[in-house]
Amino acid sequence: MTDESLKAVVLLSGGLDSATTAAIARERQFGVYALSFRYGQRHEVETAAARRVAESLGVVRHVEQTIDLRCFGGSALTGAIDVPKSTAGPPAAGGIPPTYVPARNTIFLAFALAYAEAIGSRDIFIGVSAVDYSGYPDCRPEFIAAFEHLANLATKIGVERGGIAIHAPLMSLSKADIIRQGLRLGVDYSFTHSCYDPDTQGRACGLCDSCHLRRRGFAEAGVPDPTVYAAPPLGA
Amino acid sequence: MTDESLKAVVLLSGGLDSATTAAIARERQFGVYALSFRYGQRHEVETAAARRVAESLGVVRHVEQTIDLRCFGGSALTGAIDVPKSTAGPPAAGGIPPTYVPARNTIFLAFALAYAEAIGSRDIFIGVSAVDYSGYPDCRPEFIAAFEHLANLATKIGVERGGIAIHAPLMSLSKADIIRQGLRLGVDYSFTHSCYDPDTQGRACGLCDSCHLRRRGFAEAGVPDPTVYAAPPLGA
Repeated sequence: MTDESLKAVVLLSGGLDSATTAAIARERQFGVYALSFRYGQRHEVETAAARRVAESLGVVRHVEQTIDLRCFGGSALTGAIDVPKSTAGPPAAGGIPPTYVPARNTIFLAFALAYAEAIGSRDIFIGVSAVDYSGYPDCRPEFIAAFEHLANLATKIGVERGGIAIHAPLMSLSKADIIRQGLRLGVDYSFTHSCYDPDTQGRACGLCDSCHLRRRGFAEAGVPDPTVYAAPPLGA
Repeated sequence: MTDESLKAVVLLSGGLDSATTAAIARERQFGVYALSFRYGQRHEVETAAARRVAESLGVVRHVEQTIDLRCFGGSALTGAIDVPKSTAGPPAAGGIPPTYVPARNTIFLAFALAYAEAIGSRDIFIGVSAVDYSGYPDCRPEFIAAFEHLANLATKIGVERGGIAIHAPLMSLSKADIIRQGLRLGVDYSFTHSCYDPDTQGRACGLCDSCHLRRRGFAEAGVPDPTVYAAPPLGA
């Protein structure tokens, strides 16, 4: 095993998925170099969660990159439109939801690639899943494969030494499966944050798509959900 | 011709190549949406040049994105190592030069893709050339093709309507050819800036790879070079 194979760049949003992904990278013997973004979110809650998760997992280093996606135009997550809410449960499959942020994962992976090359790593982890929330085009396996191909053409380390890998270990897992994996690896989900629209005290709304998926994931996994929601569970 | 086909996002560094590229996009009847980056360059000269060029070409809009590439680690253009200088003329071909910035064009194109999607454009222009300065892996035609493939998988506009194009109109042109094209299209090269290491008055050093290529380009094109260099031309 070479030195390079021991370092992994992990995209860390502070959500349930990326926390689990970081724990999986750690289990695979990688030193975790976490990368988070401040990109004009409505809330600071997400970046605070990323810091708590990074610390609790004992990452080697945690870098925050500030970028401005608001200057280009609208999406719910950058503050330009309202987050859709529903008391009817998780979103139905099909179509690209309004919470989609243009080219977000392409931008995140591009920075991860720069970080990986700078530290001599050839392994990048991203916590996307095509099972729950397949509406985003940049969460699909074909997107990840295309980025991996690009990465090996785009960089000195890819051209000269080859073998940059984009790992998406959650790709085929449901939210319940992700939670089961994470609990096995010691992830403390009380540190994570999923809600698109938390209140002023940082509590999850309980009504956005992300809250519905999270709540259902814990229910299906049959384990307690440590999240404090502002709205009661469905049917309560 | 649809509305989308009339808007193009053009990566604009303020250098000779990107100014020519923007002029080519304009000639092809696109409204130009220019995108520049402040990324921890040693100098503000480059961003000032980008503004002058954008204004002189009459772009529709010019957005500047500030990103931090220094937090990841070293490259000459981000301030961590010295810019190589020589009195022996342009660099020889072969190898990736130390001025290479990890994943830079991948990051730039990722932001251009977000911008394009936000404004409903399906055309992105980048002024890379594989002729002079083919040492950078992310200036090659196979890199551009791989990014175009990625772009059509990564975005709502690519998936739903298809046909995002990454234009690299300078790819097969020498520096002299680029200058001839630009002059034909009315580019004022006195507004542009190429030097990797200008002095405190913003004058080009005349000794870095970029200065050598620029100076040789004007000489080969047989037109006056409007650049003020701190060092005299070779053999003077």
